[in-house]
This record gives sequence, C-alpha cells and structure tokens, in this order.
Amino acid sequence: MAPHEDQSTAGVRGPIEALTASGLRALTGDAATLPGPGGLGVRLAARLRELIRAGGALRPGTVLPPTRAVAAEFGLSRGVVVVAAYEQLAAEGFLAGRQGAGTRVADLGPGARPAPKAPPPEEAARPGVPDLGGFPRGRWLAAYRQALTAMADGDLGYGDPRGHARLRTELAAHLRAFRGADASPDALLVVGGAADGLTLLADTLAAGGRPRIAVEDPSSPRTRALLRRRGLEVTGVPVDGEGLAVDALREPGRLGAVLLTPAHQYPAGVPLSAGRRQALVRLAREHGVLLIEDDYNGAFRYDREPPGCLQGLAPDVTALLGSVSKTLAPALRLGWLLAPPAWAPRLVHDRALTHPTGHTLDHLAFAHLLHTGDYTAHLRRTRRRYQSRRLHLTTELAAAAPGFTPLGTPGGLHLPVALPPWSREAEVLAAVRAEGYDVQGLGACALTPPPPDRPGGGLVIGFAALTPAAITHLVGVARAAGGPPPSPGAPPPPG
Amino acid sequence: MAPHEDQSTAGVRGPIEALTASGLRALTGDAATLPGPGGLGVRLAARLRELIRAGGALRPGTVLPPTRAVAAEFGLSRGVVVVAAYEQLAAEGFLAGRQGAGTRVADLGPGARPAPKAPPPEEAARPGVPDLGGFPRGRWLAAYRQALTAMADGDLGYGDPRGHARLRTELAAHLRAFRGADASPDALLVVGGAADGLTLLADTLAAGGRPRIAVEDPSSPRTRALLRRRGLEVTGVPVDGEGLAVDALREPGRLGAVLLTPAHQYPAGVPLSAGRRQALVRLAREHGVLLIEDDYNGAFRYDREPPGCLQGLAPDVTALLGSVSKTLAPALRLGWLLAPPAWAPRLVHDRALTHPTGHTLDHLAFAHLLHTGDYTAHLRRTRRRYQSRRLHLTTELAAAAPGFTPLGTPGGLHLPVALPPWSREAEVLAAVRAEGYDVQGLGACALTPPPPDRPGGGLVIGFAALTPAAITHLVGVARAAGGPPPSPGAPPPPG
Repeated sequence: MAPHEDQSTAGVRGPIEALTASGLRALTGDAATLPGPGGLGVRLAARLRELIRAGGALRPGTVLPPTRAVAAEFGLSRGVVVVAAYEQLAAEGFLAGRQGAGTRVADLGPGARPAPKAPPPEEAARPGVPDLGGFPRGRWLAAYRQALTAMADGDLGYGDPRGHARLRTELAAHLRAFRGADASPDALLVVGGAADGLTLLADTLAAGGRPRIAVEDPSSPRTRALLRRRGLEVTGVPVDGEGLAVDALREPGRLGAVLLTPAHQYPAGVPLSAGRRQALVRLAREHGVLLIEDDYNGAFRYDREPPGCLQGLAPDVTALLGSVSKTLAPALRLGWLLAPPAWAPRLVHDRALTHPTGHTLDHLAFAHLLHTGDYTAHLRRTRRRYQSRRLHLTTELAAAAPGFTPLGTPGGLHLPVALPPWSREAEVLAAVRAEGYDVQGLGACALTPPPPDRPGGGLVIGFAALTPAAITHLVGVARAAGGPPPSPGAPPPPG
Repeated sequence: MAPHEDQSTAGVRGPIEALTASGLRALTGDAATLPGPGGLGVRLAARLRELIRAGGALRPGTVLPPTRAVAAEFGLSRGVVVVAAYEQLAAEGFLAGRQGAGTRVADLGPGARPAPKAPPPEEAARPGVPDLGGFPRGRWLAAYRQALTAMADGDLGYGDPRGHARLRTELAAHLRAFRGADASPDALLVVGGAADGLTLLADTLAAGGRPRIAVEDPSSPRTRALLRRRGLEVTGVPVDGEGLAVDALREPGRLGAVLLTPAHQYPAGVPLSAGRRQALVRLAREHGVLLIEDDYNGAFRYDREPPGCLQGLAPDVTALLGSVSKTLAPALRLGWLLAPPAWAPRLVHDRALTHPTGHTLDHLAFAHLLHTGDYTAHLRRTRRRYQSRRLHLTTELAAAAPGFTPLGTPGGLHLPVALPPWSREAEVLAAVRAEGYDVQGLGACALTPPPPDRPGGGLVIGFAALTPAAITHLVGVARAAGGPPPSPGAPPPPG
C-alpha cells in the first residue's frame, strides 16, 4: 500500500493549475441548468462563487479558462456573458487578473481565504477509525487463501464456540508477547469485535444479578448506551491525570463490574497509573468486582512501549477485550475476550447457544497473519504512520490554533483537544462536521453533559485516517469556528 | 469439487480389490510392533481379525496378498508364519479361499457380516450439517478475492449495521425469486447465522414486555435453550401431519411470538399446510403476535419446488430467518433476518449498538456469489446430491431395517425415522453414537421428554454429509441395536 500522504498533499499547495473550458463546464454543469435567479451571467457568477468558496478545483491560484473558450464550450453566441461573470467576481475580490497569466482565483492568504477543501474520506476524523487505505489487502488475501486451501472439511462445520483453536493459540502468544497478558488458548474467546464481547459480558452480569457497572467519566457514549440497553445500571467514576480515580468508586460492594481503558483512557488519553492499577485490583479482589479492560488502543503508543495490560497483573479478576478494528479494519469483526477462569464456563455456555461456531475462515486467516509475523509488521508500519500524523496535528494546532490544547500522552488513534475559553464546543463541532469531519465533542463523553453554551469544552479528533492535508484543513476550520484569541487589551473572556 | 459419492461408494460393493503386501503392512504395522500375546502368527492373525471386523480396507471380497509376498514384506524368513495366520482366520470363517483367486475376506451377507466401517466425518449424521466436502472453495475464494480487490477503502470501516447494501440488494432479489419472500434491501438485516438473528429477536421480545413464545412440539432443544437463556417463557404447540396445530395455540393474546419451521418442520419433516398458514396469519394479525419463520431448510425439497415462505404471505407479521449454514457452510456465519416494518427500527437500533457494522468482506463475497449465479448453481448441485443420499437412506432402511419408518416429505438435510415398538430409542442412539454418528433422538425434541425406557421412539438422521457407504453402515448399526423383529409366533411387543 502506498502511503496516502504523498498523493493527497500534492493538490493543495502545489503548482499553479490551469482549468480548461470543458473542465469548468464539468464543474458548473451546462448553462441551461445553472440554478438561481437572474440572467445567465449572474447565475454563472453565482455558481463560480460557490465553487471558489468550496475550495475544491477552484483553489487560490487556479487559472480560469479564457472567456472566449468558455463561451464556445457553453454554446453561447457572445463571450460578453462570461466576461460579465468574471468581472462581477473580480469586483467582489474572488478573482484576480495578472498580466500574461489570465484570470485566476485570488489568493487571500491563510487567514481570510476559504480553507482548502481536501475532500475527507468517509468517517474522517471519527475517533478510533484506522487508516483504511493502509489495510494490507494483499497480505490478508494471501492469508485467507492459505486458510481456505489448507483447512479440513470439518473446519467448515460447527466448531468450537470459543473460536478456532489455531487462532486462539496464535492470539494467546501474541497477547503474552505484546500486551503482557496472562493468556492461554483455552481461556480465550474469539468474538466479533469488542462491542460483541462486551455485550456477552453485560448479558452475563445482568443475568447474574449484579447489574451495576461503573464506567469512566468521561467515556464513550456509545458504550454506555450499549450497557444500558443490555439492562445494566451505569454509574460514573471521574478520571484525572492518572486515569480512573479509584478512590472515588462508591459502594464497591454493590458493583458487578468496572469498565475501563487502562492503556489510553478514552477520551482523555492518559494511561492508568501503577498506583491506581494496584488499588483497583485490591478493590476488585476484596469486593468480587469484575474489571473489564477495554484494550482498544493498546497497540499504539508513540513515545515508549505501550504499558502492559491490567489483565496481566490480575487475571483472576480482569476480563480483557481487544480487537483488530483499530489495527486492521472494523469490517473484519474480529475481537477477543480473555475472561477470568471463574467466568469462562458461563460465557462459553451462553456463547455456544447464540454463536454455535465462529467465523472460522477469518479465524484461520488471522491465525496465519499472526503466525507469519505479518500482523506485527503491519502494527510497526501503521504505528510510524500514526505517530507522524499525530505530530502533524499537534504541530498544526500549536502553529495555527492558539488556545487549542492537546491532552493526554502520545498514543492511540485520537487526540483530545481542550478548546480555549473564548470558544464554544458546539460551534466548533458544527463547523468541522459541516466539512465532513466526524469529530466528537468532549461534552458528549461526560455522563452528565455540560450545558451546550458553556465556554471552552473540547474535541476528540481521530487522526489516524487523516492525511496531513486534511489535518491542516481541519485545524483551519476548527480555529476559524473557535473564534479569534482576545486581543491584548480586550476584557477577559467570560467564565 | 468431485462428488464424494464416486470415491466412497467404490470400496464397498464395488469391484474386487487386491491388497498388496506393502499395503497390508501399512495397515498392520511392522511385525515387531504387532501387539498382543502369543507368537508372531497369532499376533498377525489377531491384527487381521481386528481389521476385518472394522470393515475398512479389509472388506468382504478383498483379496489378501500371497503368503510368500507378505513374509518377504515383513522380513520373515519363513512364509509359514503367515500361512498359519491365514489358516487360523479361514478356520474362524473370516477368510475364504477360491481356486485361482487367492485368499479373500469372506462375504457373509448383509445380515451377519460386521457392518463395513467407513470412518464417519466429524459431526457425521448431525441433523442440519451440509456436505462440507462439497463447499465450493474455489468459487468462494474467487468471490472473496473479487470483493477484497474491488471494495472501497470506506467499506473496511464502520458501515451499515444492517450489512452491506450490495449484499442486501442481491439477497432480497434471491429471496424474492427462490423463496417467494416479500423482501426489499432496506428491510433486510444480515446477521451471523439464524441463531444470531433469533437472539436479536428474542432480546427485543424480552425487552418489549411480551416474553412468552410458542414453539413447535417437537422442535430443536438447542433453540429452546437459546430462547430460555434470553429470558423468554417457552410454551409448546403440537405438530401433526399438517405442521403446527394452530387451533391448539392457547391464550394467543398473551403470546409475544410463535417460532416455527413452515417449509419443513423440524424434526417431523412436514410442511405447514395452506389452511394452517392462513389460520396462523389471521391469529397473528388479530392478537399482534410475531411469527418467526425459521426457513432453515427452505432450499431443499426433492419431489417438487419448495413451498414459498410464510413471510411472503404476511410480511406485516412475519420475521423470516435464514442462513447459508445449510447451503454453504456453518463456518461462514452468514444469515439474514427479514422483519416486519414495525419491528425493523428497534432491531436495527439494538443491532447497531452491539454490532456497529457487519463482516463486510464476507458480505461482499456472498453478494458476488449471488450476483454471478454461482450460489444458485451450487444449490442445484447439492440438491441433486442430497436427494440421492436421502433415497439411499430410505432404500437401506426399507431393505435392512424392518420396522424403521421414515417420516415427513422428501426434503431437508435430515430424515426423521420412527423406531419399531420393539426398539428403545436410547439404546439405538447409544449404538450409533458409539460409532461416531451424531444422530439425534426424537425424544429430546419433545418439550416433555418421554421416559427413557419407553418402547419405540425415533431418530433424526442428518444424511447430507454421509456418503452412501456411511449410510449403509449407520443403518446396519442402528438396525443391530434396534433388535430383531419379533418372530411370527412371538407375543406382541409391550406397549
């Protein structure tokens, strides 16, 4: 897979481009179909204005085709209609003429011009979505072919509801080596992603008569909705710079479980400190509480080796959840659940009823990918790419968005960003979403969402799937919507 | 895939086979490793006896290699050891000599000879398991490769929780054409097999405050266990020659749903009659009851076109469940749920929480298989094969197992067989299971299982994955365990 950076960066601040008349017609549509009121010249001007604002093909510096060529292309008898449209836009400042270089889209500098539009990929900037263009299609297909060719006929039937033994063996070795997990093939359950595994745990908790679960505050609102839908009562525990504040856990004896993200708290981006880990394990053992470790980002740390998982410290009370959704692709629906021995029989029994076997072909393909080392090589490759994208994002923020403060440690696929007090989270979110970026708000991650008009707030930006050009664009949009910093003599911001 | 019949049938009643000395040594092992007490001749005889009893390579009619060649192969100085072994077995009746044709394994006729042992495949005779050797690996791999190559990067991310639109489009067309379903892409939900879809429905029923569900009696015990585990109260409705006895549905106003198998009742093997279909739909509409149609065997009918699905008759009250587990392979975990419009939003909402996207690569591969017509071609191929296997099973039963009565219409992947009154279901089951056949008992399908020592009972034999040789063997074992028919002058059997 070629890195996407190189291709996508090219168009934005690259060499001057000249548009042909037929290229312009492809953008505007035929003259007869130009929408809006007024004569043809007015409607052409309106459409061009729109295109320049959108910042796509009509970027600052783009040379427009000669009026005569445009008239011919549109089948107009007189070029004067086009001349009128060009003049109108030039008068408004959208176009600039330069001797010998024709009419071009004006470049008004980085502050005032519309931000360059690099069309974002689907789900752009959604936290937790990996760079899907980097999915190793060739390697995956080779592994799948190998699996399908070598598998026994019996493997196509109803197998082990825990998943194919070969995958559990490879996966246990991988989790021991790379996540410090206390993993054995027998204890692993292959599931259809972390949400699927969490559903299984939640149903077992609900059926077991301990339906209260504590979650981090802030945390993923989607995960809380899942837990509530499965009949659990969700309570929050605050998060600070050391992760989940174990001392703030109320009535631990009434808790069935604590769900947390120790490697890289979502969304705050901090790891759970060693002291907190120890305190949490003591609490879990004392009160019979299940710790559910969502290791969604355990593979990605950029400044050092990622911390080992909590499950490795206390396998008797911890259920580890992981998946390839952040490392390969969500569409594979491959995850794992490593539960304490006391929980495993119930989970396997329930699983066998609803999923009498696993997606065996995918299991065998992933086992092959693990066995050959292709998976860890892919992790190394993507880690380098994500590290560079995170760096680009923090650099752009520092340079172009004063008051926007990155939070957390260098890891994961998302960057939490605190907004300056003169911004409004809802306004910034609306602006970036209007541009196609599925950025999340820190407000929605809180168990009690703050009032929408409170000053400040924050963003959760998924950077893994964003090209540097898209990152630059996104920062520009966010900064524009977040308002200018107060001038030195201005009164202090409210709040 | 070459049809397995040709290869497997060959050995059993095919042309006479001559075993070479090296072939024999491959079966017995080296002379020094022959187990048991006694001299070499005795131990060789014991091993040969064992092999003849097992009925594998040493089948009736198999010509044994000349004693001199065997002696040479085993490195024995004198052929007399081998001669002694042969003579011993001939005296016991295991071997027969024929002039000019060497020594051969005696053929003692179908009644007395040990049943030929064709080692059954894993899960042999388990009802509902297709012929896994017939899985179109090449076609599936080609479809998967095409899907993986052509898919957009965005398809690797979080997509539609209902499953990929391309698959829903192809599947809706297929279900309309081949199952008479009232299917549109928007109403379909792709799930991980029928059990997964049923779990989703059951959870929605339980959460909706109508947790009582009626099931057919008899029906699949595994399915009942699933429903109970999801918190539903399960009641039974008797089944007769027309399928579910609608008139026997008690308190329909208190029912949330009725789960049934209209195309081919499991296990009784009868289709739901037209009159019953109409009565059931009227009842469902009157009382707001959801009909859950498990179309597990809708693709397989051998005497005529399969009846269209109930959902096509009443899409407003029927949820159709189907999968490729019976047509391609359980390990693909591909199924569908076509729910009434009033149910769809709740189901999709719940699904999106636990399964934010589908197994998109598998979805696109299956869509390709449907699009090219390879799937329907595969259905035609397997239908012919299963029809011939079912015929072999009923023929063998008629010929070799008096009193064993096939039930139901020619369809599906299993044959229900009533046992004669002088048999005990538990004893017959124990015997065939000891031979590796996962035959089910009719008794376990009843909501109130009959006492284990009642006379008669019945078997549910999955024939799709059984070679003709295995079918013959299975019938022999069952017949032997089911006891001989009473002689004409004997007192009538109890009961």
